[in-house]
Amino acid sequence: MSPASFHPPRRLLMGPGPSDLHPRVLAAMAQPTVGHLDPAFIGLMDDVKSLLQRAFGTANELTMPISGPGSAGMEACFVNLVEPGDTVIVCVNGVFGGRMKENVERCGGTAVVVDDPWGRPVDPAKVAAAFAAHPQAKALAFVHAETSTGVASDAAALCRLARDHGALSIVDTVTSLGGIPVRVDEWGADAVYSGSQKCLSCAPGLSPLTFSPRAVEAVRNRRGKCPSWFLDFSLLLGYWGGGAKRAYHHTAPVNALYGLHESLLMLHEEGLDAACARHRHHHRALVAGLEAMGLSLPVAPADRLPQLNAVRVPDGVDEAAVRAALLTRFGLEIGAGLGALAGKVWRIGLMGQSCSAAHVMACLTGLETVLAEMQAPIHQGKAAAAASGVLFG
Amino acid sequence: MSPASFHPPRRLLMGPGPSDLHPRVLAAMAQPTVGHLDPAFIGLMDDVKSLLQRAFGTANELTMPISGPGSAGMEACFVNLVEPGDTVIVCVNGVFGGRMKENVERCGGTAVVVDDPWGRPVDPAKVAAAFAAHPQAKALAFVHAETSTGVASDAAALCRLARDHGALSIVDTVTSLGGIPVRVDEWGADAVYSGSQKCLSCAPGLSPLTFSPRAVEAVRNRRGKCPSWFLDFSLLLGYWGGGAKRAYHHTAPVNALYGLHESLLMLHEEGLDAACARHRHHHRALVAGLEAMGLSLPVAPADRLPQLNAVRVPDGVDEAAVRAALLTRFGLEIGAGLGALAGKVWRIGLMGQSCSAAHVMACLTGLETVLAEMQAPIHQGKAAAAASGVLFG
Repeated sequence: MSPASFHPPRRLLMGPGPSDLHPRVLAAMAQPTVGHLDPAFIGLMDDVKSLLQRAFGTANELTMPISGPGSAGMEACFVNLVEPGDTVIVCVNGVFGGRMKENVERCGGTAVVVDDPWGRPVDPAKVAAAFAAHPQAKALAFVHAETSTGVASDAAALCRLARDHGALSIVDTVTSLGGIPVRVDEWGADAVYSGSQKCLSCAPGLSPLTFSPRAVEAVRNRRGKCPSWFLDFSLLLGYWGGGAKRAYHHTAPVNALYGLHESLLMLHEEGLDAACARHRHHHRALVAGLEAMGLSLPVAPADRLPQLNAVRVPDGVDEAAVRAALLTRFGLEIGAGLGALAGKVWRIGLMGQSCSAAHVMACLTGLETVLAEMQAPIHQGKAAAAASGVLFG
Repeated sequence: MSPASFHPPRRLLMGPGPSDLHPRVLAAMAQPTVGHLDPAFIGLMDDVKSLLQRAFGTANELTMPISGPGSAGMEACFVNLVEPGDTVIVCVNGVFGGRMKENVERCGGTAVVVDDPWGRPVDPAKVAAAFAAHPQAKALAFVHAETSTGVASDAAALCRLARDHGALSIVDTVTSLGGIPVRVDEWGADAVYSGSQKCLSCAPGLSPLTFSPRAVEAVRNRRGKCPSWFLDFSLLLGYWGGGAKRAYHHTAPVNALYGLHESLLMLHEEGLDAACARHRHHHRALVAGLEAMGLSLPVAPADRLPQLNAVRVPDGVDEAAVRAALLTRFGLEIGAGLGALAGKVWRIGLMGQSCSAAHVMACLTGLETVLAEMQAPIHQGKAAAAASGVLFG
């Protein structure tokens, strides 16, 4: 290596996250660092907590960003709630459900897996059957918005099932928060985590999280200590728990929190309903353009996430070559398929600041150009008009 | 709350970290986010790895920043190396040694504690005795630079003891890296972690870490799975392990890594030896000024960390009022005592970009002004000249 300052290439981020950051958020992160116990910073933490409560639709006192990526937020839920010998029903319909199962097992719990096909939502009837077979289950864990497939599951119904069976619900909203409605208190959800880099359009590295009073009670009633010191809520609450006196636990990621604050503020200014409507609107335009081109989406319309669109790779097309051409020639990043869908789909994100008319048009025209050159069987010259009709018609 | 953009107050950060960030590092973090699997970003990761290897003085292949603060780096060492039933000798001479003990116990290990007084270095003779009594010990864990007391321990001697007894060494260099020599390969250290926000003067939130081939072998030979999915090196290596093909593990904190890269580059440009000499030089000036004022340092001169100076609070002085006055009137942050030293000392940091003549002078003159107003028993009018004599004499 010959060391030199790094200057990133210009990109339009339309993969499964990170999404594009607004200049306001980038500028916020570049403000000078202050101490994590500075009174001014404590005020920022209070504001972040309030803004997160609004975004999650909750009054939960334990609402805070974990100082790590979404997978640290996931782990925080499991290490605090699952102890050796506990049974947890885990819904698996994509990569991230599988990761939840891993988490349960590493905590010494038993995972009862409810499998659904990749590309389909979690089936509440199967979950009800699992509860019937395992009435002692302590928790139900599922992914609201599966990033690996672009499928939304019915969080309200699943959380209700958990409550009806006296179990806690652990909900992954990494890709949903800010893109489709997340209503923690209305659902009666208990442990909910998200990520900063999807529909919140903040830099990756933070995991917003909220625990219901029931979940906090479960943490208090643990038989043994949390296996993780870093993620132990009985300690973390001393820092994020509110009140004037903050106990030092770890040094908070100050500049990252500047950015999260600004991105949550922008979401608040736009309004949650307006943000969700924006995601639906641009999703319809993207789909209209893709279908006009002759491309198809494997997920049924009712189950689709507007912010993450799985698109079938046409037969005979080298999917990686398409992504590489989009990246190098158009500066446009889209995602590959993961796991069971690797090689079969692209994943096109319309998340947060990456959900705009300009992004939709850049993606459609870029994809059309590259596919036409590869002589893929598509209809040319129709996508932009179809999308534009939805966007501005 | 009335939500509005956050603008931090101007501060000079002279506490125990975070330290002041250079404008180059702030600007680097504000560059647009790219995808964590983008070829340009993979290149950045390779450069960060090389720069970290130089900073740590190691050729270790497993050298990377953990996507969390120093306490996540600490936890990464313990959860990967310590299994239920393992014995670990843990040296405790301050807060962070105590935290290591907690980590061992949460991994199901037995911690054999070697206690030394707060403000004194770890005594290698006591460690040798602990190895004699516990020859089966799998590892020796100690803090190179105790942030809670400002004391340096003899890392070379302690790592040698571990090797001589066939044990791994786990070394906390959170406060030492970039401020005093850290020579991982020369010491024969096995698992070493640090923090981004001390002498590297990057934003808090990342934990540089390096594992020797022996430590990697120990991870490979585990009897069971790592209890943490997020910190499991058998998975993380797929992403950071080098080679063209990077397996997705978690979304890397892209903008934070831009900042770490720039701060490591600045350290490389200055040179490690020059950076350490700068810390010693400004430390001598600060101490000269403090002593001219009549203040004293509880740590013996030979054991002092140049980058973190514990200073005795004079009798009858309200230490918190002094810190508050410095913060509100001079924008100057210094640290309180922790644990056994709470209320008894201040901790004055001279870390990274906060180690300059301007910082030394601002601290001495601010402290003198505030103490004089409180009618503390100090000599007035001598500190600046004493410090200046060392700095420029």
